[in-house]
Amino acid sequence: MKQLKIVKIGGNIIDNPSYLTQILKDFAAVEGPKILIHGGGILASEFNKKLNIKTKMHEGRRITDEKNLETVIMIYAGLINKNIVATLQSYQCNAIGLTGADANLITSKKRSSSPIDYGFVGDIEEVNTSTIALLLENNITPAFCAITHNQKGQLLNTNADTIAAKIAIAMSKNYETELIYCFEKEGVLANIDNPNSLIPSINKTSYEDLKKRNIIHSGMLPKLENCFNALNQNVKKVIISNYKVLGKQDCKHTSITL
Amino acid sequence: MKQLKIVKIGGNIIDNPSYLTQILKDFAAVEGPKILIHGGGILASEFNKKLNIKTKMHEGRRITDEKNLETVIMIYAGLINKNIVATLQSYQCNAIGLTGADANLITSKKRSSSPIDYGFVGDIEEVNTSTIALLLENNITPAFCAITHNQKGQLLNTNADTIAAKIAIAMSKNYETELIYCFEKEGVLANIDNPNSLIPSINKTSYEDLKKRNIIHSGMLPKLENCFNALNQNVKKVIISNYKVLGKQDCKHTSITL
Repeated sequence: MKQLKIVKIGGNIIDNPSYLTQILKDFAAVEGPKILIHGGGILASEFNKKLNIKTKMHEGRRITDEKNLETVIMIYAGLINKNIVATLQSYQCNAIGLTGADANLITSKKRSSSPIDYGFVGDIEEVNTSTIALLLENNITPAFCAITHNQKGQLLNTNADTIAAKIAIAMSKNYETELIYCFEKEGVLANIDNPNSLIPSINKTSYEDLKKRNIIHSGMLPKLENCFNALNQNVKKVIISNYKVLGKQDCKHTSITL
Repeated sequence: MKQLKIVKIGGNIIDNPSYLTQILKDFAAVEGPKILIHGGGILASEFNKKLNIKTKMHEGRRITDEKNLETVIMIYAGLINKNIVATLQSYQCNAIGLTGADANLITSKKRSSSPIDYGFVGDIEEVNTSTIALLLENNITPAFCAITHNQKGQLLNTNADTIAAKIAIAMSKNYETELIYCFEKEGVLANIDNPNSLIPSINKTSYEDLKKRNIIHSGMLPKLENCFNALNQNVKKVIISNYKVLGKQDCKHTSITL
């Protein structure tokens, strides 16, 4: 089976030009089929501020009304995605910038408005694996931003971690898939203020324990749920790691296992 | 030889939702390989106004400084392009939204800063015909916005009429290519204020005459130069027409011939 590396880079990397340059350079140098998924960072919120558009959040998740949707389309699919593509091209990585609407690659359904109305937020229904494989087989590297569509003309803001996991799961039918969540920390930390508190591996049992003891909480919970979902559905390997992991073989990280 | 239709839609169509819906519906219904190229419209300028960014023009052409480049990337490659793609998908046209940076499809060179410094504006060097053909052969319809790249990480604002002509020329090696410039008028008018003054056909000789008599001037001159360039380099057919042309067989238009 062919191998496939799926790398998700988070918002704090996007916001830091030196981190972003480093990981794009390292990503470009990865051999074989690979896919990049990127989050949004603070640019969209900064931009909303300039335009007097309110950024509404509920439990750390953006509520995407019509104006906020316009902003994320402009910033994620426009400014961030196309600059990432141009940078990867300058490192001889033949990237193509994508939303889920492009070539109908990722379809989703607008989330129900109850109990919380998140607005134009999509929950993924299907990943079009054959077109992604067509690109990969032609040495084209998909670079996804966190936007999908409902096939009825509506673009939808979609969690980038979940996009990465769903693509990894779908592609695992035909590839031996590794999913790497990259961010600015070393991995999952027992104490977010202590960089030396890296948890080197988490499995389902230890996860339940860490959750109970409130060592893992808030945004790390859905990220780890995505990791376990991926492993449960044939993704071969999942790690949460520092953005240097692609260029540094002995880079510390958190391995997620079942 | 296979046939290929290349349709460029101008800014005034983008700005009018009913025109835009109509042409996207008609474009989606066109059978066989096809490519869409779209301009920008007034959205970028409106947006600059909100953000207090100066829109600078020289002889009808935008001067693209760094802030203006960010705006056009957000608006052209983000907001406009992705909404066009999602709309085409809703009409069962398997569109993919592209800049020239994506899959290295169109490379360009930053225009010399003398005599006029247009800023981050690109003059096209090469169109990557094999990847465009790969998409077309897999029933994927490229939808290009007016942005290219220099392969060194720099995105560049690029005239959409010229992108359409250059793609048509490049694809003519392997396809019998028809190039259609669509806008809100019937075609080239002898008197811009009189919709009944359509010039049904223009060839090189009549063009020189119309130019001398100042009947054709300003923005229509580079558009017609693009048309003649295309015809000179094996594009089979070039017309300038109303946005209804794709859905209406007897639609009036201006035929351009050598």
